[in-house]
Amino acid sequence: MRIDIITVLPELLKSPFEASILKRAIEKGLVEVNFHNLRDYADNSYNQVDDYQFGGGAGMVLMIEPIDKCISALTKERSYDEIIYMTPDGETLDQKMANGISLSKNIIILCGHYKGVDHRVRETFITREISVGDYVLSGGELAAAILCDATIRLIPGVLNNETSALTDTFQDNLLAPPVYTRPAEYKGMKVPEVLLSGNFPKIEKWREDQAVERTEKLRPDLLK
Amino acid sequence: MRIDIITVLPELLKSPFEASILKRAIEKGLVEVNFHNLRDYADNSYNQVDDYQFGGGAGMVLMIEPIDKCISALTKERSYDEIIYMTPDGETLDQKMANGISLSKNIIILCGHYKGVDHRVRETFITREISVGDYVLSGGELAAAILCDATIRLIPGVLNNETSALTDTFQDNLLAPPVYTRPAEYKGMKVPEVLLSGNFPKIEKWREDQAVERTEKLRPDLLK
Repeated sequence: MRIDIITVLPELLKSPFEASILKRAIEKGLVEVNFHNLRDYADNSYNQVDDYQFGGGAGMVLMIEPIDKCISALTKERSYDEIIYMTPDGETLDQKMANGISLSKNIIILCGHYKGVDHRVRETFITREISVGDYVLSGGELAAAILCDATIRLIPGVLNNETSALTDTFQDNLLAPPVYTRPAEYKGMKVPEVLLSGNFPKIEKWREDQAVERTEKLRPDLLK
Repeated sequence: MRIDIITVLPELLKSPFEASILKRAIEKGLVEVNFHNLRDYADNSYNQVDDYQFGGGAGMVLMIEPIDKCISALTKERSYDEIIYMTPDGETLDQKMANGISLSKNIIILCGHYKGVDHRVRETFITREISVGDYVLSGGELAAAILCDATIRLIPGVLNNETSALTDTFQDNLLAPPVYTRPAEYKGMKVPEVLLSGNFPKIEKWREDQAVERTEKLRPDLLK
């Protein structure tokens, strides 16, 4: 999978891709992530990529021309499954969407910043608009990192133990059961006895019951 | 506002806090963000902070003892409004929650990693569990960064122009209207004429109509 991220702040995205699972996935060659600084596509001596919005009002808007140039340069080289714009008014990301996107070959992710991008960009170049949740961020960069993390960890071979992802919350529309590790007792707080029993069918049953119970209590909407 | 983030991967969080709005908020002294490496609280020579889960199964679990020590060290110094655990089965973050949290004085954010934290941590130390969306991430670090970004930008004085945050999507349960900037025409694509009219009451009316129309079309659930 190849991911091209277009941003005015590539430096913001540096550390998340240099640590942990994303780093490992890149090192294993399972995913290639490229950052494109929108300022490199500005057609003026100030590297200006944003301007005031027409009609007045607070907040700068990313201009269409540098975005057009950057996307055109990429799509000339290869075809893309999706050209995604991260925006709070897009489709809300969920685990099912992440599963689908993890099967892509090439995607572009455009990060908005300030007040957003010129609306003509969204109407002309973007094939999919995605939100990571009903809240506003100062830019699309962290949202892009979230989309990459949720997606890349599902690519076969990225997690050391693939059954780990399959037992995660949401993969079966259930929240995950509680987990415990040593010590079995800490300041009087004990681990549920069944988990120490060695009786694996019983443990499995307990986990299923807990998953259903927690989902009914905390997220009944997932069971509909 | 003071934010203490407890994590096994402080290096993952580095760049988001060294760029853009979060950086500026820290430099202005409007927020103080401290990273605490959980390994510094491990009580063994290997700095071990995770272990296999009781009852078997894939994925490591963060142990209670180092978390207890780290949280205790912090709460001994000052009182906290909330001790938050980032987890996909928590309350789902939205703009209203972000508004509320932005009024806090001190908060702790605990990032899970691997399969999560020992459940006794959640039952004993955590006052609030927050999810950034219905998808699984490889750790709570990016979720913590999202929570910080959504929250910190709402602190008065962080954004250069405060009216910018007030006209964002979700602040009034409506999606934001489309925005445009120069040029007025690009490859035959024109900006809506009203925005070039200079007639501000008419522009205001157009924006309101667009906000309602886009919300009805894309997110009718917000209008309920």
